[in-house]
Amino acid sequence: MNRLLVVVNVLGKMIAVFGLTMLIPLCLALWLDDGAGWVFQESILVTLSCGLIMWLLTRRYKRELQTRDGFLLVVLIWAVLPAFAMLPFLFCLPDLSLSMAYFEAVSGLTATGGTVLTGLDNLPLSINLWRGEIVWLGGMGLIVLAVAILPLLGVGGRQIFKAETPGPMKESKLTPRIAETAKGLWLIYASLTMVCMLAYRWAGMDWFDAVMHAFTTLGLGGFSSHDASFGYWDSPLIELVAIIFMLIAGINFATHFVAWRAKNFISYRFDPELGWFLFIVLASCLGFALYLWFFNIYTDPLTALRYASFNIISVATTTGYSSTDYSLWPIFIPFWMLFLSAFCTSSGSTGGGIKMMRARILYQQVYRELITMMHPNAVTPAKLGKTVISSRVVFAVLVFIFVYIVSIVLMTLVLTLSGLDEMTAFSAAVACINNLGPGLGGIGPSTTYASLTDFQTWICSFAMLLGRLEFFTLLVVFTPAFWRK
Amino acid sequence: MNRLLVVVNVLGKMIAVFGLTMLIPLCLALWLDDGAGWVFQESILVTLSCGLIMWLLTRRYKRELQTRDGFLLVVLIWAVLPAFAMLPFLFCLPDLSLSMAYFEAVSGLTATGGTVLTGLDNLPLSINLWRGEIVWLGGMGLIVLAVAILPLLGVGGRQIFKAETPGPMKESKLTPRIAETAKGLWLIYASLTMVCMLAYRWAGMDWFDAVMHAFTTLGLGGFSSHDASFGYWDSPLIELVAIIFMLIAGINFATHFVAWRAKNFISYRFDPELGWFLFIVLASCLGFALYLWFFNIYTDPLTALRYASFNIISVATTTGYSSTDYSLWPIFIPFWMLFLSAFCTSSGSTGGGIKMMRARILYQQVYRELITMMHPNAVTPAKLGKTVISSRVVFAVLVFIFVYIVSIVLMTLVLTLSGLDEMTAFSAAVACINNLGPGLGGIGPSTTYASLTDFQTWICSFAMLLGRLEFFTLLVVFTPAFWRK
Ligand SMILES: [K+]
Ligand SMILES: [K+]
Repeated sequence: MNRLLVVVNVLGKMIAVFGLTMLIPLCLALWLDDGAGWVFQESILVTLSCGLIMWLLTRRYKRELQTRDGFLLVVLIWAVLPAFAMLPFLFCLPDLSLSMAYFEAVSGLTATGGTVLTGLDNLPLSINLWRGEIVWLGGMGLIVLAVAILPLLGVGGRQIFKAETPGPMKESKLTPRIAETAKGLWLIYASLTMVCMLAYRWAGMDWFDAVMHAFTTLGLGGFSSHDASFGYWDSPLIELVAIIFMLIAGINFATHFVAWRAKNFISYRFDPELGWFLFIVLASCLGFALYLWFFNIYTDPLTALRYASFNIISVATTTGYSSTDYSLWPIFIPFWMLFLSAFCTSSGSTGGGIKMMRARILYQQVYRELITMMHPNAVTPAKLGKTVISSRVVFAVLVFIFVYIVSIVLMTLVLTLSGLDEMTAFSAAVACINNLGPGLGGIGPSTTYASLTDFQTWICSFAMLLGRLEFFTLLVVFTPAFWRK
Repeated sequence: MNRLLVVVNVLGKMIAVFGLTMLIPLCLALWLDDGAGWVFQESILVTLSCGLIMWLLTRRYKRELQTRDGFLLVVLIWAVLPAFAMLPFLFCLPDLSLSMAYFEAVSGLTATGGTVLTGLDNLPLSINLWRGEIVWLGGMGLIVLAVAILPLLGVGGRQIFKAETPGPMKESKLTPRIAETAKGLWLIYASLTMVCMLAYRWAGMDWFDAVMHAFTTLGLGGFSSHDASFGYWDSPLIELVAIIFMLIAGINFATHFVAWRAKNFISYRFDPELGWFLFIVLASCLGFALYLWFFNIYTDPLTALRYASFNIISVATTTGYSSTDYSLWPIFIPFWMLFLSAFCTSSGSTGGGIKMMRARILYQQVYRELITMMHPNAVTPAKLGKTVISSRVVFAVLVFIFVYIVSIVLMTLVLTLSGLDEMTAFSAAVACINNLGPGLGGIGPSTTYASLTDFQTWICSFAMLLGRLEFFTLLVVFTPAFWRK
């Protein structure tokens, strides 16, 4: 119980700060007079006061956080912040149900990017800005989570990255370590966002769209201010900019950080995920471009390459933009795209899924198993790049991937049980757990999650949190052992 | 190369003996004069002579088999015997393509029970008997494979059963060990088949159907001599007999053997798979009976229980009989049934899937992972019942389950790529890899695999072999390292 109060103290402070970030859309709303000014004023009022009250009431429990508090804090941040992030949606759109508003906020803060809103082009700009901003803020949190916190907590084999995180991290206290790491990563993240925004503007977006889409590109969050997503512009140049920055954001931010500090590109060469990520994604683009051209879905090879590349990279990096309704392509292609979204992104990025690092360890373990069957006494150490990995980590990775797969199976079963057809149910499970966004069937790229029932919407929100917190962070908090002294 | 010749020598002998087993349907054909006499005469001639030629030509390579030869022999038996088992189908049904005949034979010998034939009720009885007999013979092979051979080869963690196999097995030579084990197991298998046959006869089947269905019940192979499968009789009593013997055949035959030798039931109490198998399967029956009744698919609770029990137990034990078209039930139920077929049967049975033993080890490993996250220095040994399991075995099990899952994903992708719709493709992958038989969609319980293209049929045959040989046995043979000295 004490643990909860300690964590609520930190959480309260974060909620208050989060409330202040609503000042940005408030300013936009007031400046444009788009009618949503009062929405953000009330939201800030509620959020700030709740945060401050939580903080003040638990002040006397303040102490240095321990590792185990970390699990709880992470879970509460991603489960409770959306309850405040959804306030502008609730106030501005009176028809929106609670489940849908919470879904939209979770989708933003987990950088999933599936939406329940339609008529995006007619929303007040400040509301769209807020949608982009929560993706971006969520992305900030996710990078720090991935690079600094989950490795410390030892979730799903991430402890191998403990040694590689930048900054004076080892063996010091929890909070300053994380703060130090965070600062460096955020600098990179913010700089890349700025560059991306300028590139979008240069390629033909207006200033507002450039800012909003730079937010959701770097966060790999996929929210757009247009119902047609990138189909709105129908511009190869804008799509090219998006492709480049989605690929950049799919790389480990720790690698970007090291490259930036060393002022050279050596770190990219030694990134154990980068090569595989680019190779698999680009080979898929090329292969399916040929396929789409060969089967005359696009008569021109360059058009085929354009549509294949943008949509495949968008799904593989778990961004979730679309430039056409790819669910109408031969079903093999969308299936392969969902498959890619499961494992392509790097472990220190804002992407979802099991991450390339774990996929590589799994692949290697299969190979080791074959060798051991033929030479029962042979010892082949597990490696990632040149680093030898302990059995402990390999176990953690294998178990992680299982829990991932079992979660998809169970979510699919629950959603079909609730009455959803099999294609929508399965793709919703995959798209939410991978934090991808759009699925197939009833939640395909040309439609939204709005058709789901309340129950199904809550399940999808839970699935997004489960995937984003890498299962174990969430599961651990539900074990009785966690709450014992 | 030498290795291949040594193995071909043994294989030749087995093919010759296999040819002799065709004497049984030949006798039936001659006795009933059903027109298929010449079919079996020619099949025996071809099979016997091929077998003898292979055996004679490689006679001088005869030597004691080594462990590694075991992999190759097992793969060749299950890949080559179907090429002879299909001869009666090819000769008797001139319209049948090669891919379909081979599919039917593989489906029999792997005890899968998916069929490409329609008009079963009008086939010569001797052909139907042969279909039942290859399931039964396949089952004999599979029990020995599961209880004696795969544990020796160390496939997918089965080495934990090495110590438990009956007979004077340890540290003696390969062939006599296996022969000794086989004798005991086959005695149980044959006795149970006899009892099952009498029970079917007593419950109302004619003698022929009783024999044929006893064969396919104990082999968990699912072939029937009627297009309507068990719907043909519409008899609760016959279905009850089937339920009892499917459950018996889903239990480890080594456990049956020990119980029989000790003349008591203690071994059942210590079987680490039995309790879970029965609990999960029976709970599912009860749950879905209530569901079917509650949603008025059957208006009478007992009817609901009857249909739920028979079809769920049939699918969960990977038998593949049906008494109604359960693919028309709310999609959640067939999905759950496919899910059950993936892990319910015991590791020493003729059932397919990953087996309950591996599912339990996986489940336990997830729990251990949660504990280790909270107490990084705690040591919790992996256990199955009271036996401590080595990390080596846990790794093997985890990797096995992955390869299983990845195989399903890849097979689904290949089948969709070849033009199949997603439901048929996915359920075909699951039904073939689990050696279940009927799937959903275009290959549901009321239809057959006949609508597949040649290419798809070959893929499904391969998937059945892959699942039955537990992936690694097959994969190992394709590695270059296997063929080095
Ligand atoms: K996303
Ligand atoms: K079967």
